[in-house]
Amino acid sequence: MTATVNRTDTLTGQMIIAGTFVTGTGETVRGLDPSTDTVLEPGYAHGDDTHVDAACSQAAAAFDRYRSTTSEARARFLEAIADNLEALGDTLVNRAAAESGLPVGRITGEVGRTSGQLRLFAGVLRDGGWNGARIDPAQPDRSPLPRADIRQRKIPLGPVAVFGASNFPLAFSVAGGDTASALAAGCPVIAKAHDAHPGTSELVGRAITAAVVQTGMPAGTFSLLYGHGPTLGTSLVTDPRVKAVGFTGSRSGGTALVAAAAARREPIPVYAEMSSINPVFVLDTALQTRGADLGKAFVGSLTLGSGQFCTNPGLVIAVDSPGLTTFVESAGAAIADTTPTPMLTPTIANSYSAGVDALSAASTVEAQAPGSDAPNSCGAAIFSTDADTFLGSEVLQQEVFGSASLVVKCTDAAQVRDVAAALEGQLTATVHADDADMDDAAALVNVLELKVGRILFDGWPTGVEVGHAMVHGGPYPSTSDSRSTSVGSLAIERFLRPVAYQDVPPALLPSAIADGNPDRLWRRIDGRLVQD
Amino acid sequence: MTATVNRTDTLTGQMIIAGTFVTGTGETVRGLDPSTDTVLEPGYAHGDDTHVDAACSQAAAAFDRYRSTTSEARARFLEAIADNLEALGDTLVNRAAAESGLPVGRITGEVGRTSGQLRLFAGVLRDGGWNGARIDPAQPDRSPLPRADIRQRKIPLGPVAVFGASNFPLAFSVAGGDTASALAAGCPVIAKAHDAHPGTSELVGRAITAAVVQTGMPAGTFSLLYGHGPTLGTSLVTDPRVKAVGFTGSRSGGTALVAAAAARREPIPVYAEMSSINPVFVLDTALQTRGADLGKAFVGSLTLGSGQFCTNPGLVIAVDSPGLTTFVESAGAAIADTTPTPMLTPTIANSYSAGVDALSAASTVEAQAPGSDAPNSCGAAIFSTDADTFLGSEVLQQEVFGSASLVVKCTDAAQVRDVAAALEGQLTATVHADDADMDDAAALVNVLELKVGRILFDGWPTGVEVGHAMVHGGPYPSTSDSRSTSVGSLAIERFLRPVAYQDVPPALLPSAIADGNPDRLWRRIDGRLVQD
Repeated sequence: MTATVNRTDTLTGQMIIAGTFVTGTGETVRGLDPSTDTVLEPGYAHGDDTHVDAACSQAAAAFDRYRSTTSEARARFLEAIADNLEALGDTLVNRAAAESGLPVGRITGEVGRTSGQLRLFAGVLRDGGWNGARIDPAQPDRSPLPRADIRQRKIPLGPVAVFGASNFPLAFSVAGGDTASALAAGCPVIAKAHDAHPGTSELVGRAITAAVVQTGMPAGTFSLLYGHGPTLGTSLVTDPRVKAVGFTGSRSGGTALVAAAAARREPIPVYAEMSSINPVFVLDTALQTRGADLGKAFVGSLTLGSGQFCTNPGLVIAVDSPGLTTFVESAGAAIADTTPTPMLTPTIANSYSAGVDALSAASTVEAQAPGSDAPNSCGAAIFSTDADTFLGSEVLQQEVFGSASLVVKCTDAAQVRDVAAALEGQLTATVHADDADMDDAAALVNVLELKVGRILFDGWPTGVEVGHAMVHGGPYPSTSDSRSTSVGSLAIERFLRPVAYQDVPPALLPSAIADGNPDRLWRRIDGRLVQD
Repeated sequence: MTATVNRTDTLTGQMIIAGTFVTGTGETVRGLDPSTDTVLEPGYAHGDDTHVDAACSQAAAAFDRYRSTTSEARARFLEAIADNLEALGDTLVNRAAAESGLPVGRITGEVGRTSGQLRLFAGVLRDGGWNGARIDPAQPDRSPLPRADIRQRKIPLGPVAVFGASNFPLAFSVAGGDTASALAAGCPVIAKAHDAHPGTSELVGRAITAAVVQTGMPAGTFSLLYGHGPTLGTSLVTDPRVKAVGFTGSRSGGTALVAAAAARREPIPVYAEMSSINPVFVLDTALQTRGADLGKAFVGSLTLGSGQFCTNPGLVIAVDSPGLTTFVESAGAAIADTTPTPMLTPTIANSYSAGVDALSAASTVEAQAPGSDAPNSCGAAIFSTDADTFLGSEVLQQEVFGSASLVVKCTDAAQVRDVAAALEGQLTATVHADDADMDDAAALVNVLELKVGRILFDGWPTGVEVGHAMVHGGPYPSTSDSRSTSVGSLAIERFLRPVAYQDVPPALLPSAIADGNPDRLWRRIDGRLVQD
């Protein structure tokens, strides 16, 4: 089929199935500027199972050719997507800012982060390490039995379903990390737009579709659908042609997709990033020497993006002391100076209010931001409790999505570690420590390694660097699969699996494991890493 | 606690929990020599939930210290296990041969394979690539925001439950591949012995326990339990202290464990190897030029170990032709010359008979081995059918564990590919091709890559080389997780997950990612692989 790409900036309100614009048949949703409660045109009609079937059929048809493209060809495709996103300029920034209520500056940064991620994976493709090339050469004279020639490389799993997240309308959405890593791996992508930013999703979907055409990729390499998670989303995850799922969102949504994928005739991997309260540990001397500064800086991280980061610091754990009192007072003063800012959607704002009410009922209110008449706004708040109460309360251990944080006061460093050990899995843990705290810090790190995907010192967990060493993941329930990351170059491994080739004739060997190393890869030859 | 190791060759009939011998409380099982139906003493009483609790408690207690041992220390531990296994000599070989009905020669080879696996992982530990070390150095002057110092390494998941398989009483059992890779990764192991070889399991468990003591590992690093899969096995998989599972066995058993693990409050990975019929494709010119030789060699692979290999060739797919007739006639003649050999257990022998009956009812009987009065014996058999019948029959597509194979006759090369594309996931696919078959072979490989873990040419799938490039795995239902392998050095990745360290003080950094590269590892610095 010929791809038809709408290159104008006018939003169509349509889905994109393998390059073709298609109008849905279901409920029509519209964007909403949460800062003003203004509805944003056009309407987007949700798709149905025929659209899921069409997108999956096209993705499956595209897979064979797409997975056979060279690393260089896919690198150029990813770069074309990045270029197209940036070329959208204010059109994209303004729409995403309006649909999310996030400041223009933040969204501008997020465009750069998104195109940066795509270019990072272009680099990963050119490096070629993702192939995992290994060769154990034949040993025809080995006794008692000769050894065959055995080679290994990684291949893509197949079409991947990507669920856009509400809180990063670009970096964790239609062209976000999951899409970038899946496309890099050689997997066609079917993205489900998040209803909170349908116009942004269309703009980004068109940028990807244009790149498909520009770089000659098969049309089914990318589709964009609109629909509810429990209906269209489940159809997508249970379609036999879909071979893996990327999701960022709520614990209930992620858990439902994991269960649906596990109940398939052929179960498939689901990478769901779900829930994290990101504990911050402030050790004794650090509290003593700079409790006031830390309290103020903490509020900066807590209120960033209305507290709607996956890595928002929802928990502070420390030994009760004058330093901690100073920290809390300083944080409280900073919170009193904040102005409530809009949350992503009315539903999220209502959930936040309910979460704050629950925390108020179960702990001590330390500080709250001034009230606001602005719609859907998030007023930051800090609560406190003691460690025993915390450990005995399910409510206090749950994530409240937004700028709310709970200070857990411990009796001593051992109880701090006990609290750490009792936590569920987390994306991050932060430690503030002075030199005199190093022994406590070492003991704490030993506990935290088993609880989180990223340990950071003397900073704040919000702001996830996109690079090669980043891990944005962690034990359940922060994610459904701790063995990988959703940010950074290691994410490509989510969508790959190894295949061995034994005595396969040279003419049929993929170039990554061919004789003479035509791709100039680092390969393990008999287990030793060489660029042969 | 002090480990007490029984160093005599006298079997105790006891479980081993963290170095202590413990007598079970449940049903008592005994080994059985299936070739003579002779019961083998002593009895082994199954454990109960208190034993699971004790083993898990000890494993969890050992984990912290065990995961902190150096790669070199764990390498020596694995080598000590290998040495201890070999030192058991005839005691181990004779008991395993008696309990399995497998020939002494085969068991002797399997001891070497098992100790070889352990030594392979010792080498993997010394190489250090398993750490996945990555460093993105700080960029304090970056604009608009400085970049933090971010480092990544892999850490072990935690205690691993390993289920011994019946068909390799050594290489896929108590000290088999799953145990070797989990111990290498830094995970304590709780092994569940297979009831078909309880004495072998005790001997091997004692060899591991002795190595724990010899190399100063914490006692809870290894435990050995006896029990039923649905009861004790499920308790083990659902214990919150167990963080991953390795299993080789039936599709029903594996599926049940996967479901139990997915239903946990914290779901965990299960690596279950379950079912594979290992299609063999014989292309036209190969059939024409060497159909008779191939038919004879095929029977050699089919009858190896009474057909009880996971990679046994249960399916032959080819274009119907005079060459195929020659192949089948030659295979039939070879089968007529075979003597039925004992299967592992009476249950397995009964299942084989039932499977042969089902194949007889649904297809054409081409050849069967002579009858035998020996107990529990497996008579090889070949059946045939046409492609349409095969594609329409669930019975014909199911694994029959033993020396039975089905020849599927196709009309042309396109139908051969259609049959390949319709198959469930497999561990292996074998292609026999002459130079003139290369175009067909290339098209077929393209289909097979998406179906199997290993593609091999001009050989036979039985005999899985233990090395760095091997993949013994594949899409569902051959395994529950196609992203890894159970044989070969890549298997260590099953039991690891990445952790990022951001601005962590140098004194607290693990050596794998420390400044100055004290472990002399290959590491990715800003994404580039260097031995810095």
